[in-house]
Amino acid sequence: MGEEVKVFGAWGSPFSRRVELALRLKGVPYEYIEEDIVGNKSALLLQYNPVHKKIPVLLHNGKPIAESLVILEYIDETWKSNPIFPEDPYDKAMARFWTKFVDDKCIPALWKAAWSAENEREKAVEEAYECLKTLETALDGKRFFGGDVIGMVDIAANFVGFWLSIIQEATGVELLSADKFPDLFKWTEEFIGCNIVKENLPPRDKLLALFKARFAQVMEPQTNTSK
Amino acid sequence: MGEEVKVFGAWGSPFSRRVELALRLKGVPYEYIEEDIVGNKSALLLQYNPVHKKIPVLLHNGKPIAESLVILEYIDETWKSNPIFPEDPYDKAMARFWTKFVDDKCIPALWKAAWSAENEREKAVEEAYECLKTLETALDGKRFFGGDVIGMVDIAANFVGFWLSIIQEATGVELLSADKFPDLFKWTEEFIGCNIVKENLPPRDKLLALFKARFAQVMEPQTNTSK
Repeated sequence: MGEEVKVFGAWGSPFSRRVELALRLKGVPYEYIEEDIVGNKSALLLQYNPVHKKIPVLLHNGKPIAESLVILEYIDETWKSNPIFPEDPYDKAMARFWTKFVDDKCIPALWKAAWSAENEREKAVEEAYECLKTLETALDGKRFFGGDVIGMVDIAANFVGFWLSIIQEATGVELLSADKFPDLFKWTEEFIGCNIVKENLPPRDKLLALFKARFAQVMEPQTNTSK
Repeated sequence: MGEEVKVFGAWGSPFSRRVELALRLKGVPYEYIEEDIVGNKSALLLQYNPVHKKIPVLLHNGKPIAESLVILEYIDETWKSNPIFPEDPYDKAMARFWTKFVDDKCIPALWKAAWSAENEREKAVEEAYECLKTLETALDGKRFFGGDVIGMVDIAANFVGFWLSIIQEATGVELLSADKFPDLFKWTEEFIGCNIVKENLPPRDKLLALFKARFAQVMEPQTNTSK
């Protein structure tokens, strides 16, 4: 096809992994460019996403698109095979609703609970539980949020499917367990059990080491304060 | 057509007005149901939007959809006349990008700046200016964000087009002026000058009174503290 498809991402980011997963599901070959998002963002990234200066950016035939959910919509509209959205407008609206819920409510609540200081933890964990409980209702007995195959909500919920368990291990804060949320827990196993997902996940050990180092950093000031 | 189209909204909310404006642009007749969002939410609203318990909700032939941006996408997919999104996937992605920018960055920054306590105002106003400056670049010399006609970004930016000037008057915090952002200011005039927009705006005086009362409430504790 001679198409130029590039993804500017970061290896440990669930957001650029979303974009890569969608392209892989569609069978679209792409070039991956790793960005140094902590230290030194590239001139290209700043040029392609001057508003947020963040990954991921999809470059398609010279045209840049930012924001992972916007990119996922674009991918589904541009490459028609293996649709990630349902065709029916109402089902599509529901997929968008849950995707938005994952981004606006779920991820922030989980993140906050996992890294919360001890005196704020109980409330933050309760809020995270509420989100997980709500998200579980969206599964509604299905194998994937998308039904029998991975769809938009599954892709968007990759943080819940993979990253969360590693953060839990690093911080010792348990949020999603088989006991509390059996259907959602089963979904995480189904999700990371798919070959196409598995091939597109960052190395668990490397990510765990990163979060453990972060945890040590976050906890340090708290320990100092209590001295 | 015998279709059932209902909008659950609140008269002063830019979010339910977005939904109404889109339906009006499409020429879709609908029944409007005013919700008492401060006092007593109706059993129907809680049933139709159990996750967020908020307006707006669109009910189409018995099926509820929540979240104004999700509703707008649904409306554009369901009723094809007078498209609010551009047809080209890249242009559509750009419309989604700017819509998301309005909701995630612009409105929160403007709201924060307008209601900020005096000691936090300077920083908050600077951040609001940054957002307005960025939003202005999206206009890029066009009459509307959508080009010659009102599109998705115009509808989503209705807060900037109408509500903001009233909040500015109520709080005395000037954010969007013809001096600072001439193109964006001109857009607000174009936007509220459209008949179809004008017919769908809440009464200015009533909204001003509401925001003035709110301002008095917000300022009271600050005045008490400084005593």
